[in-house]
Amino acid sequence: MIGTYTNEHYLEKVLAFHGHAAPGVLLGGHLVEAARKKLPKDCIFDVLCESSQCLPDAVQILTPCTAGNNWLKIRDAGVFAVVLYDKYTGAGVRAWLDTAKLAAFPKTHEWFFKLKPKKEQDGDALRAEILAHGAEMISTRAIQMKPEFLARKGKGTVAVCPGCGEAYPVKFGDMCPLCAEGRNYDVV
Amino acid sequence: MIGTYTNEHYLEKVLAFHGHAAPGVLLGGHLVEAARKKLPKDCIFDVLCESSQCLPDAVQILTPCTAGNNWLKIRDAGVFAVVLYDKYTGAGVRAWLDTAKLAAFPKTHEWFFKLKPKKEQDGDALRAEILAHGAEMISTRAIQMKPEFLARKGKGTVAVCPGCGEAYPVKFGDMCPLCAEGRNYDVV
Repeated sequence: MIGTYTNEHYLEKVLAFHGHAAPGVLLGGHLVEAARKKLPKDCIFDVLCESSQCLPDAVQILTPCTAGNNWLKIRDAGVFAVVLYDKYTGAGVRAWLDTAKLAAFPKTHEWFFKLKPKKEQDGDALRAEILAHGAEMISTRAIQMKPEFLARKGKGTVAVCPGCGEAYPVKFGDMCPLCAEGRNYDVV
Repeated sequence: MIGTYTNEHYLEKVLAFHGHAAPGVLLGGHLVEAARKKLPKDCIFDVLCESSQCLPDAVQILTPCTAGNNWLKIRDAGVFAVVLYDKYTGAGVRAWLDTAKLAAFPKTHEWFFKLKPKKEQDGDALRAEILAHGAEMISTRAIQMKPEFLARKGKGTVAVCPGCGEAYPVKFGDMCPLCAEGRNYDVV
């Protein structure tokens, strides 16, 4: 079970949303539920993902928190951990993949530390190990979000950028960040 | 219609995923489809959102691109625009809310520039205006992604952080970013 889902049902959800049965989303499901179990039943929580790989999709499949509604925040530190916290008080729980516990799970250990090239790994055995034992690879502890992270940041006043003529939040400065810092593309 | 969805069906999808019928996700749906229409039919595309508000959810509802599978990239510039581009060649289309076209749509103009407090706005009329006319508020143009943005960035070698004992990608430095730069919470 992953939360209220059977393993099979969760796998279906992952395929539909993420596009493939990524081990990181399967293990991420166990992370989310390990943290949620430690929260009070009626807690209205936000989520912080400490990696942008896979974890955000486990959160978006299992909780009401999404990248676009800002109940999910992503900090791309490359660390396999999620924090679920009361959105009003900031009291919460962090769940992380505890590498000290991985020795008992050779397929997951091999995958996580990239000890073998992907094509030499047994993907089915890896997924089965994670689905059956993912919860045993995780540790949790209580945390308190810092007030500056908890503060609700509104968009504020919107103005038209003198550079490109598009609208942007003036809190970013005299021009929109795309004109001020450069774009990721060239106009053709 | 928003892509292959009727307005009603899209609205249902937005409620289920985003949690409420946010005008930004409704307008975002028109943005995504305006860009997609200009791509070749068989194009395998990635998406760049130029705002982290609402737009990522329109993308995640309408395309296979998600925050966790990294086919969706989010740059929080606060600009209401999306870029869909061929993931191999980087040739693509940017769609943006064209404020020069907003004068004809008073409810959307008022909402977008926050000309009235939210509670004085007529939410139903706003949503109806966006669903019916969103496509008329948008401009598009061809772009070419810069090569450095197109390059696939793997996680690389994973090591155990000497600070916290958790695993992180060594490309980030001698310690994980959480130990090096600080965390968003205190342990309690």
